[in-house]
Amino acid sequence: MSDPLKPVSIAILGPGTVGSEVVRLLTAQAEDLAARVGAPLEIAGIYVRDTSKDRGPNIPRALLTDDASALVAKADVVVELMGGIEPARTLILEAIASGASVVTANKALLAQHGPELYEAADAANVDLYFEAAVAGAIPLVRPVRESLAGDHISRILGIVNGTTNYILDEMTMRGLDYDVALKQAQELGYAEADPTADVEGHDAAAKAAILASLAFHQRVAMDDVYCEGISAVTSEDVIAARETDQVIKLLAIAERTADGVAVRVHPALVPMTHPLAGVHGAFNAVFVEAESAGGLMFYGQGAGGTPTASAVLGDLVSVARHKASGGKGPHESNYAEHEVLPIEAALTRYCVRMSVEDRPGVLSAVAEVFARHDVGIEIVRQVPGQTHAGLILSTYSAPERDLRATVSDLEASDAVAEVKSVLRIEGE
Amino acid sequence: MSDPLKPVSIAILGPGTVGSEVVRLLTAQAEDLAARVGAPLEIAGIYVRDTSKDRGPNIPRALLTDDASALVAKADVVVELMGGIEPARTLILEAIASGASVVTANKALLAQHGPELYEAADAANVDLYFEAAVAGAIPLVRPVRESLAGDHISRILGIVNGTTNYILDEMTMRGLDYDVALKQAQELGYAEADPTADVEGHDAAAKAAILASLAFHQRVAMDDVYCEGISAVTSEDVIAARETDQVIKLLAIAERTADGVAVRVHPALVPMTHPLAGVHGAFNAVFVEAESAGGLMFYGQGAGGTPTASAVLGDLVSVARHKASGGKGPHESNYAEHEVLPIEAALTRYCVRMSVEDRPGVLSAVAEVFARHDVGIEIVRQVPGQTHAGLILSTYSAPERDLRATVSDLEASDAVAEVKSVLRIEGE
Repeated sequence: MSDPLKPVSIAILGPGTVGSEVVRLLTAQAEDLAARVGAPLEIAGIYVRDTSKDRGPNIPRALLTDDASALVAKADVVVELMGGIEPARTLILEAIASGASVVTANKALLAQHGPELYEAADAANVDLYFEAAVAGAIPLVRPVRESLAGDHISRILGIVNGTTNYILDEMTMRGLDYDVALKQAQELGYAEADPTADVEGHDAAAKAAILASLAFHQRVAMDDVYCEGISAVTSEDVIAARETDQVIKLLAIAERTADGVAVRVHPALVPMTHPLAGVHGAFNAVFVEAESAGGLMFYGQGAGGTPTASAVLGDLVSVARHKASGGKGPHESNYAEHEVLPIEAALTRYCVRMSVEDRPGVLSAVAEVFARHDVGIEIVRQVPGQTHAGLILSTYSAPERDLRATVSDLEASDAVAEVKSVLRIEGE
Repeated sequence: MSDPLKPVSIAILGPGTVGSEVVRLLTAQAEDLAARVGAPLEIAGIYVRDTSKDRGPNIPRALLTDDASALVAKADVVVELMGGIEPARTLILEAIASGASVVTANKALLAQHGPELYEAADAANVDLYFEAAVAGAIPLVRPVRESLAGDHISRILGIVNGTTNYILDEMTMRGLDYDVALKQAQELGYAEADPTADVEGHDAAAKAAILASLAFHQRVAMDDVYCEGISAVTSEDVIAARETDQVIKLLAIAERTADGVAVRVHPALVPMTHPLAGVHGAFNAVFVEAESAGGLMFYGQGAGGTPTASAVLGDLVSVARHKASGGKGPHESNYAEHEVLPIEAALTRYCVRMSVEDRPGVLSAVAEVFARHDVGIEIVRQVPGQTHAGLILSTYSAPERDLRATVSDLEASDAVAEVKSVLRIEGE
């Protein structure tokens, strides 16, 4: 330890909900934190665009500054809580260049520019910690990076968006329609007035990119992530799922195959007995499959000012401790260069629900379409209907491109009136 | 980093299931591990009592030695996988005294002598890591120690014994009787021929002591842990639980109250919607309640050679990395000296199931007993019976001593034929 009494100086960029909670905790728990860090933590300043605006009781006016670059230049640790790409990216690069360590909760930035930032931090020998960017309060980065350092992760399945999990859970547990559940989520503040980023899976896709980078030491950007939201999920889908002891979840999936790394976000059927099926409400959970450890799950609140502040503070203690003792934390600097596979190459199982003509020979015609594309059928369930019969088929695992071609031919088939839904099956 | 090419020398004590898997992985992943540590890992030797015995293909004979002290003296890192108290305790103290860091999976030792060992490691400025001792493969120590370093843990609820969770889960999901489920667990190898350590809660109590020490920076030994097993749980209890949307789980509970720290192991009623209720089979999970982060859960395999080896190897990479760079990991050296509270002081809710005389005035007589001890009744359910009526009462939270006095008076009451079961309610 260089000098245990020299304070570690902290710059806070962005005094929003998370930022002001971090500042409050830094003050309220100053003594405790100093003991854990091995040196006192001192707030060098708080960057805001407008210093004249009142920021509430937690944010002392004297600490406000509108000169972010000057603030960053004098800090040992920069805590970036502004969100957005710029100026966050430039300020983090300035911090790294001046030898400061960085803590950020900015998932959009990491999903787009993560590799650039990780490499800059590595080259400058400083820490870049981002626990709060992946799944809010849930500790994921340390377990994946350190606890599993002697293991190999093969797959990650995550419920990483609370809004969509809330909506799907309400549809499942209370039989609500999608529109009603969405409206309820908006009334409760779980969903925004424009819910696109959540319900179309964009938020989950950003987190999937970060998770994949973390798990496979691999450069994955948000554009590499195949993304499908939940707005097409109907209560019929939910009921059909329950009849076969499954629930529908929006999953962020990152997996390593022999050919490369595949990253995707889409609604999926999950068996009721899978631990992810028990994740209710707006909670998040990430299920990690590792070679030796087997299945591990990490569960908690994926958003919210106070939980996110807990994750930021945990990171802050770690990087400040490294600063105080003149070192830095473990990093994975050797990135792998696996191919990031397109969705067509993913191996999945499908559950296809359709209405078909109610006459002999239909099942055989449908089966022939699957056989034509080499897609094995595991289970067929017929459901009597009024004008048409219902048919629910679950396939064996097959490449997505074959499954798509099958569905496309089904849609063109005389025997099939309508393909009502196509859901991938995961977690088995 | 002092000298990136100087190997870190590892002593393995105990070549059992976990040990030989660790040795196998050290060899199979040598290159990967060296990259993560920053130096190659070299097995200095493997201690066994009898060097003439063959230990299988993973354990090279040339590395075997029966001189544990000599082996420990020349190692940078000692991996203790022998189990039991002695000679494990003495060898770990020898390792610490000689400046080696230690990785251990020995829960019995830590539950009894943890504080002595943690303090010795602190004084000698070496690492003592024990991820595998708490819940097998589940990463808990890093999340609790580091990710939550800026937060305050108020309570931990853990399913930390796979055998009892398997038995209770079979009783719940398949309606088996306790004896049948136990026999099935024995046939599948989940339970031993003498299942006492598992079913009476002793194994869970050892882990509870370690968890409490970890969460509250507090010296807690196994003798401080109140312990009640599952052998008295009946299928009637399981059915009554299900009728109120609850399941019975054996929980290890550590909580901080205004008066001190309480640590206990007993069967408990958990609401079906609680994430712990979804932990099936022989899996383990630990639910952590923290002030800012809220509820977090960590789930995975709590036992087994390969999962445990994954946790050991994660620890090994961390401590070897610290050795290679001349440092050590974060430690909590300032132990708190809260009082460890007796079970009588614990605040709990009870569910009391009894058979009562089937005549007017009985409910009033029963209610009077609760009122006499100041225990509030939240819900009463009457169940018609043949000779007696059934009565199921759930109380509000009250000190255990008052609840016990209430039950004792109920047993003496003319109105009550039999108190059939008393279960604490947790996780609400």
